[in-house]
Amino acid sequence: MSSSTTGTPQIVPFPEIERITQDASFDSKLIDAIAQGFVDFSSGKFNLCPVQTMGAPPMAPLVEGVEDYAAQVCVKSGYVTGDAYFVIKVASGGRPLQNSGLMQVYSQSTGRLEALLLDEGILTELRTAAAGAVAAKFLGPSTVKCIGMMGTGIQARYQLRYLKQVTECRELLLWGRTKEKVEELKEELKDEWNVRVTEAPQELLESCNIIVTTTCAREALLDGPVTGPLLIICIGADSVGKRELSTDLVSKADCLVCDSNLQTQERGEFQHALRENKVKLASVQELGQVINGTGLSNNRNLTIFDSSGVAIQDCVVAKMVYESL
Amino acid sequence: MSSSTTGTPQIVPFPEIERITQDASFDSKLIDAIAQGFVDFSSGKFNLCPVQTMGAPPMAPLVEGVEDYAAQVCVKSGYVTGDAYFVIKVASGGRPLQNSGLMQVYSQSTGRLEALLLDEGILTELRTAAAGAVAAKFLGPSTVKCIGMMGTGIQARYQLRYLKQVTECRELLLWGRTKEKVEELKEELKDEWNVRVTEAPQELLESCNIIVTTTCAREALLDGPVTGPLLIICIGADSVGKRELSTDLVSKADCLVCDSNLQTQERGEFQHALRENKVKLASVQELGQVINGTGLSNNRNLTIFDSSGVAIQDCVVAKMVYESL
Repeated sequence: MSSSTTGTPQIVPFPEIERITQDASFDSKLIDAIAQGFVDFSSGKFNLCPVQTMGAPPMAPLVEGVEDYAAQVCVKSGYVTGDAYFVIKVASGGRPLQNSGLMQVYSQSTGRLEALLLDEGILTELRTAAAGAVAAKFLGPSTVKCIGMMGTGIQARYQLRYLKQVTECRELLLWGRTKEKVEELKEELKDEWNVRVTEAPQELLESCNIIVTTTCAREALLDGPVTGPLLIICIGADSVGKRELSTDLVSKADCLVCDSNLQTQERGEFQHALRENKVKLASVQELGQVINGTGLSNNRNLTIFDSSGVAIQDCVVAKMVYESL
Repeated sequence: MSSSTTGTPQIVPFPEIERITQDASFDSKLIDAIAQGFVDFSSGKFNLCPVQTMGAPPMAPLVEGVEDYAAQVCVKSGYVTGDAYFVIKVASGGRPLQNSGLMQVYSQSTGRLEALLLDEGILTELRTAAAGAVAAKFLGPSTVKCIGMMGTGIQARYQLRYLKQVTECRELLLWGRTKEKVEELKEELKDEWNVRVTEAPQELLESCNIIVTTTCAREALLDGPVTGPLLIICIGADSVGKRELSTDLVSKADCLVCDSNLQTQERGEFQHALRENKVKLASVQELGQVINGTGLSNNRNLTIFDSSGVAIQDCVVAKMVYESL
């Protein structure tokens, strides 16, 4: 009545993962791998499970009696057809939970767990930042004079780290809600970026050629006339109800691109403009299609990329880290 | 840009889990805990995620070019409201994969992985066998003269191990498709059971007071007149299309009980009789309701319990093992 135990999984602690992600070539490799991941995704080679969500309605809360309770745990699973691995990611966060996460790499040929990556959520941060860089590379204007950043959190830092891989521009116009956090980030970046600060988001629309939005807003922060050419990379809106752009601004774009057509309707930045019928789903392309060669017009003045984060990105980054061990 | 790493999970290797499950009091404790689990489940205290299934249609196969490919990986997750833990179980099997599995115990209050139980699937075997014993305890006839077993695999052995906890009867009538396997099991059991073998399944219906069916059949094996009083515990049918009883036999029962009303319609033994309209869902009770006190008639001649396996059982057994470490 005993089973065989052929092989035990590799448990990879956080410091080892962090070390791998700090390798000089990691960022550029991840950008290339994520770009290929989007191509696989949009060509139907990715097998995506429905997300399991625990702790959020209609389920019971994980912790009782917490004011403004917002915790949830998501289990995201999938695999590329014919790849060596499938990946299960568990991510938790929201008040009162501290953000944490791990990625599990399994063999497709045996079904067995090969590695447990105790990444504490940084691999999700990195694959998200890499998606921003992929968008900048394939959708950005040929000349970038100034980059705008909305938000001053961890993801803002990662986005800037990855943008450096795909643009020479080091002019940064920074906006954030909390003055101290803006100053703190400005100080942190001063050796690598020429940082200006603004209190008016619309100044970004007038002065920048790339804007990245990384807040957790649920109301439109960006609205107004656009000078252009401009690419807005929308990162913050990754679940139902979140948004950073006005639907008027979205409707001004002459090119709309998302990571996943399915997700953009439900949980991405475009959910609102689609629902208000200000843009049509048929006019939204997936980034993987664009990379794969469906032509983009050269005369785009306003391009908007909506990233809500797809599980293929988790697969790509988990595989990269595992194979670097 | 670095995250904190508060605590690393406990990795529990197979031998340690096996040792815990061989403790003298483990089986009886698990039976009690599984009974309580069914009560929690039927009273709406269990939060159940939709199952993630990889490798089975409509998804791409995990392994290419295998004749009679039948592999799949299932991710089952859930938690009891107000409990300390939530559990994610990953189970893989089906040609050409060897059966394997693991259970992950997370803290509800932090969202963090506390323990990874590398159980190779035995905890699923045990929680399934414990459900059979719970059914025998709460639904079985007051006097048991003979127990019938259909099937000669691992689960048949575990069912008998657990039945010993809830009945004094040691008379066993054994049926299996493969003669050598029947003889092998008979030999294995001879010190603890008086084993008779039959080639006619209907003999079990005539001679036994409890029958457990543990085959992987997709056709009715059991059919014919019932002497009674008899409880049939149906274990084998746990997915769409599987079955071990004729729908005529099911329709003869004066008491139908299942683990989950939802699952029995889709993937349990009752799926066929329900679809053929030979029994009505309204006449099927959940085991948790029965344990919790909804009266059962004393004059039952044929009672059938349909177990397709619910995630609460995984939560219960994972928690028990974790707390025994």
